[in-house]
Amino acid sequence: MAGSSFGKHFQITTWGESHGKGIGVVVDGCPAGLALCESDIQHFLDRRKPGQSRYSTPRKEADKVEILSGVFEGRTTGTPISLVIFNQDQRSRDYGDIATYYRPGHADYTFDEKYGFRDYRGGGRSSGRETIGRVAGGAIAVKILQQLGISFLTYSRAIGPVTIPHTADELLSVFEQNHEDSFAKIQNQILTNPLYMPDHDSSEKAQAYLEDCMKHTDSAGGIIEGIITGVPAGIGEPVFEKLDANLAKAIFSIGAVKGFEIGDGFLAAAAKGSQNNDAFCMNNGAVTPVTNHAGGVLGGISSGAPIIYRAAFKPTPSIASTQQTVNNAQEEISISIHGRHDPIIVPRAVVVVECMAALTLLDLILENTSAKMESLEKLYGSGV
Amino acid sequence: MAGSSFGKHFQITTWGESHGKGIGVVVDGCPAGLALCESDIQHFLDRRKPGQSRYSTPRKEADKVEILSGVFEGRTTGTPISLVIFNQDQRSRDYGDIATYYRPGHADYTFDEKYGFRDYRGGGRSSGRETIGRVAGGAIAVKILQQLGISFLTYSRAIGPVTIPHTADELLSVFEQNHEDSFAKIQNQILTNPLYMPDHDSSEKAQAYLEDCMKHTDSAGGIIEGIITGVPAGIGEPVFEKLDANLAKAIFSIGAVKGFEIGDGFLAAAAKGSQNNDAFCMNNGAVTPVTNHAGGVLGGISSGAPIIYRAAFKPTPSIASTQQTVNNAQEEISISIHGRHDPIIVPRAVVVVECMAALTLLDLILENTSAKMESLEKLYGSGV
Amino acid sequence: MAGSSFGKHFQITTWGESHGKGIGVVVDGCPAGLALCESDIQHFLDRRKPGQSRYSTPRKEADKVEILSGVFEGRTTGTPISLVIFNQDQRSRDYGDIATYYRPGHADYTFDEKYGFRDYRGGGRSSGRETIGRVAGGAIAVKILQQLGISFLTYSRAIGPVTIPHTADELLSVFEQNHEDSFAKIQNQILTNPLYMPDHDSSEKAQAYLEDCMKHTDSAGGIIEGIITGVPAGIGEPVFEKLDANLAKAIFSIGAVKGFEIGDGFLAAAAKGSQNNDAFCMNNGAVTPVTNHAGGVLGGISSGAPIIYRAAFKPTPSIASTQQTVNNAQEEISISIHGRHDPIIVPRAVVVVECMAALTLLDLILENTSAKMESLEKLYGSGV
Amino acid sequence: MAGSSFGKHFQITTWGESHGKGIGVVVDGCPAGLALCESDIQHFLDRRKPGQSRYSTPRKEADKVEILSGVFEGRTTGTPISLVIFNQDQRSRDYGDIATYYRPGHADYTFDEKYGFRDYRGGGRSSGRETIGRVAGGAIAVKILQQLGISFLTYSRAIGPVTIPHTADELLSVFEQNHEDSFAKIQNQILTNPLYMPDHDSSEKAQAYLEDCMKHTDSAGGIIEGIITGVPAGIGEPVFEKLDANLAKAIFSIGAVKGFEIGDGFLAAAAKGSQNNDAFCMNNGAVTPVTNHAGGVLGGISSGAPIIYRAAFKPTPSIASTQQTVNNAQEEISISIHGRHDPIIVPRAVVVVECMAALTLLDLILENTSAKMESLEKLYGSGV
Repeated sequence: MAGSSFGKHFQITTWGESHGKGIGVVVDGCPAGLALCESDIQHFLDRRKPGQSRYSTPRKEADKVEILSGVFEGRTTGTPISLVIFNQDQRSRDYGDIATYYRPGHADYTFDEKYGFRDYRGGGRSSGRETIGRVAGGAIAVKILQQLGISFLTYSRAIGPVTIPHTADELLSVFEQNHEDSFAKIQNQILTNPLYMPDHDSSEKAQAYLEDCMKHTDSAGGIIEGIITGVPAGIGEPVFEKLDANLAKAIFSIGAVKGFEIGDGFLAAAAKGSQNNDAFCMNNGAVTPVTNHAGGVLGGISSGAPIIYRAAFKPTPSIASTQQTVNNAQEEISISIHGRHDPIIVPRAVVVVECMAALTLLDLILENTSAKMESLEKLYGSGV
Repeated sequence: MAGSSFGKHFQITTWGESHGKGIGVVVDGCPAGLALCESDIQHFLDRRKPGQSRYSTPRKEADKVEILSGVFEGRTTGTPISLVIFNQDQRSRDYGDIATYYRPGHADYTFDEKYGFRDYRGGGRSSGRETIGRVAGGAIAVKILQQLGISFLTYSRAIGPVTIPHTADELLSVFEQNHEDSFAKIQNQILTNPLYMPDHDSSEKAQAYLEDCMKHTDSAGGIIEGIITGVPAGIGEPVFEKLDANLAKAIFSIGAVKGFEIGDGFLAAAAKGSQNNDAFCMNNGAVTPVTNHAGGVLGGISSGAPIIYRAAFKPTPSIASTQQTVNNAQEEISISIHGRHDPIIVPRAVVVVECMAALTLLDLILENTSAKMESLEKLYGSGV
Repeated sequence: MAGSSFGKHFQITTWGESHGKGIGVVVDGCPAGLALCESDIQHFLDRRKPGQSRYSTPRKEADKVEILSGVFEGRTTGTPISLVIFNQDQRSRDYGDIATYYRPGHADYTFDEKYGFRDYRGGGRSSGRETIGRVAGGAIAVKILQQLGISFLTYSRAIGPVTIPHTADELLSVFEQNHEDSFAKIQNQILTNPLYMPDHDSSEKAQAYLEDCMKHTDSAGGIIEGIITGVPAGIGEPVFEKLDANLAKAIFSIGAVKGFEIGDGFLAAAAKGSQNNDAFCMNNGAVTPVTNHAGGVLGGISSGAPIIYRAAFKPTPSIASTQQTVNNAQEEISISIHGRHDPIIVPRAVVVVECMAALTLLDLILENTSAKMESLEKLYGSGV
Repeated sequence: MAGSSFGKHFQITTWGESHGKGIGVVVDGCPAGLALCESDIQHFLDRRKPGQSRYSTPRKEADKVEILSGVFEGRTTGTPISLVIFNQDQRSRDYGDIATYYRPGHADYTFDEKYGFRDYRGGGRSSGRETIGRVAGGAIAVKILQQLGISFLTYSRAIGPVTIPHTADELLSVFEQNHEDSFAKIQNQILTNPLYMPDHDSSEKAQAYLEDCMKHTDSAGGIIEGIITGVPAGIGEPVFEKLDANLAKAIFSIGAVKGFEIGDGFLAAAAKGSQNNDAFCMNNGAVTPVTNHAGGVLGGISSGAPIIYRAAFKPTPSIASTQQTVNNAQEEISISIHGRHDPIIVPRAVVVVECMAALTLLDLILENTSAKMESLEKLYGSGV
């Protein structure tokens, strides 16, 4: 399949391998007239760049983006935007040995079964570097959505067993009481701590946990939570192209994700209807849910309430501890994976999750432009 | 959007509303030469039909399927298969009052915001009856997959707070020791208890819980778990069309689903790499994972191990207890929803989940036919 | 492939065979709020119905459409519209003999090669009756476009060697001088003559030609021409989803079409640039092409000028004259096809061409709603 | 729309403008295991490169392709292949003046209407340089098809009013009598004459015609014809994804194409059924059409006979003669376009047509792999 494209209107097509010449993305369907320059995108790439803290791989990559097409005199032209990030630090020699065996928890075996062979250098296409294309494309989606009044807050909710004490609603209520300031404050807290957690104490505890993992040549997983505010009601298409269904796919397409939930998620399964239903009230002239157990989506369509979702990430599979596996001569062997690996990928994945959410939402917002005759008449006039 | 189609190769397009003339599905892209008759499909529809137990709506519907096209002399012809199920018991008068207000937990408000108005009778298109089309199409997918050696086991893992004591792996290990017998036995246990639970004690406790809910005019949710065995390694397309990502979307497109996980799911987020990685060994000449924390998918591609996934369903939103909401004159009101509703939809949703999983898997199996030059040469020969 | 769907936004999925239970179409993605009833659609189906003149098959079919979903209280709801037309006069006995051999000019052989067997009754899915679904869906597209000020004029330009003496431009110039009256007059002329030709003399000559064909148990082809007025400039997507490219595919997907051209078409190949270029002038404050060699499309995007296109139809392949062919025992045989066939399908295909053009244009008009940031801000407001 | 992607399985996504940094294509869905290097692709690019004869623009471009991803150790890996061709000779100063007015026959006006503004340098995205991406991707498609025994012969049938005297059938019959030699001979004849015509006399006459055009600062169009041999029967999907319909779209998506026909094309419209039907006979144990009026397609599905099609190209719109147009201040002005333009684009478009045909055919060949249960069982085995 042409499985490297995402989105129907605002479509990204990504390419590139961990140790190839570079990573790139073609963004097609971007509305014309958006002011865009490389720094708009670089800002997002810097959030996932390696080497930002001692909890990420020491591989040295500037991850510098270059715009090759689709922008003229500082604005998008409506034609495809080609973005490229050339690889720099590709020490392929680190990976010569993994050509011959299947690393547990990696896609080595399944790629071989599917394609007959694989680019084994650093995981090739199944490497986390693949997400660079998503972030570069997603940065543009976020910029468009911001111009429509939509904001994103994305952070590490849990690192291994360490979880922040506040629910998304609680974080948000602080934020809502004093919009401008508190949002910026939370964003700042997230962006300035090495684990992108919106709580200082939890971050400290999580760092201690990670130190322990690293000491034992082990790795950790975690949970990323996202909040999207300002989404107009009516976004999402019944019955198969629901907003939450597309969001689930988008987030689950990120390597290492093993679970996804929206609103109360798995907790809702144990609740009663009387507890889980969100009553409606009037608020400043608008129909508004009183609570938000639903996470901003009803029947797959946005309700105007904040969209709240979570993704579970498994621990990094590359660990230096001894593991049992099989080589391509079908012999059982013991291995220990060295090289430059992240003991945890969650902090670097925060911006990837945010970007996938933005790509999903924007695509459905573009889709919704033709839901009503009224919208068509507003754009094209009426001949009657 | 054309949001009522699912699948790229084996594509279903569903239509119909709760209180319209009927519900239907067009199945396009079905391989030619499959033996198919109405009872193959009816068997699946009967598993979701209302009135099977005291825990489902008393609405009377035979849900009788009719094949209108695409089958000739008992076999599929490769052309679209049109299936229709006419509605019978449509008492629209039950729903006259809900035209004027927004039921909490339902899609009334969001449909109005999206389309400007809605077919309010029984939820219209957002009703659970919409899933009939999925089940009718999915039944065909299951039949094709069975011919390729693939089996499905789907059941209620939890009803409200009552959870079965065995993991999917444990259920499966029983099953694996004595394939034919135990699989049939578990299937029989599932299909003959009113809650589709594979454990008698849990089912009894869950029924007691539901009786209590009903007494208090309240409703319950639950968790459905699915196991798919016999899937060949290599199914799923990097990077956006991963098997698990498509499964997540498919399951999340079912109304009332609030969470999805694969393998260890959210538990994996708190585990360490050394615990979560599945070592490989040789087993009967095949590379095989020793454990199955991954749930049968690595890098979005099937590994040959059983695929294990779970979906969280929220409690039925229609409850007779008093609730606060808003009417379409934007007045705040109190309501109490009467009519014929399920106190829980989980048991009837089991077959819907199974069908969506089958549709997803089949589509990716059809996709994978062109992954390698070797496959093309096998089918078309080589001109060299 | 799911090859029975057309369109990305306004998507039709057709089903049904010539001698099955019926023919139908699911229209998904229709904007909500359009007034729609069965007679809106029936009006179009009546234009292609058999038995309207002595030049079409005497098969008796009312081709009565029924709306099964997607319309509530006389308006479209935004959910899928399912339309069904049950077959009535299915004399399958007429076709028993063709089960065993391959009719020249038909798809019998190619269906067998593709699928391994075929529904041979009346051509099954490859019958001209398949176009009923296109017309039913297209009728809705035409109605939407009319509300945006877009009009269609479609007619037989040639029947066999008999061609009308006026170019589309000449027909149009009459029309443009006195819009309301002349358009209605031409439409009336087309709809009231048995060959749908906009010229009385040509129609007489063509009828004489057809009488001669019928006398010699032979058949005829022809050329259909279409004019679309009122299309706003800017419709069509570079580079692969051009308006003319999509129109070419849409029209070529109608069985029996062997050629398609836009504007001057093949004549343009022999012209010089100085002859073929359309100069621009100002006309009532609008940039307007002075001539229309281009047929209303520049770079695959509509220019605001009338869209003019033509399709060549081959003669009906079913003829009673003796023909050489092969049977499914691979023996060479002589056959003579009897039964109820059209000596020409062009007149009945006129409305099919019009509907496919409307489906194509509407889909691209819906697509174009998100071409500019300006449009998004008009629909969703701006958060800045 | 994401309008820059073509194909569902073997999908190309092109990007780049005439005077931007470069032109590129991402090829997604290429089967793994194909031997591929840059010279495989360069060979095709050289056929459309400017400056090959005095009838093409003197712009100097090496059009050197670089593979950035998707190929490992000389073989395709199944992951996206990113190809880039950097622009070299971009003299933007040539185009400064066209920023302010609309060139007749170009897409300047329609891009402005669609997007609000445009990259005016050399036509930006609507330049003929856009086809570089098609050729680079198409070269890979041709290589795959060759391995399945499929061959392409594509050439200029007409240059302005000068047409070669042989039909495709006649060319082919020479070719068929002595396959290897004659095919190579015709290919050689095509590739070594500056107009890619398979007839020496016609080429001479056409060159004289072009000299005359150039003397009068005018331009010419022409007709390209393609023959594809070795296509297995059964390729193409009823009813909307027919082989000829997709081919029509593919070819019509090339700028400057105004007409497309298959087999006898427009001539079929004037023929009788008895003349136009192709009888079947047995030939070396295979069902074979005796004649080929159909051009190798019946009911939209390949019959095994050679596929024969033609495309009409309009004359190059950029001419130095004086023309009337409008500027963006909506004033009527006279212009004369100077700069480096092709007096005819037909010869350079030959390889573009061939590549679009190959992309279309390959995509449908990949699609057809799942048409029958029998094929699935051949690839996946049967569990029964």
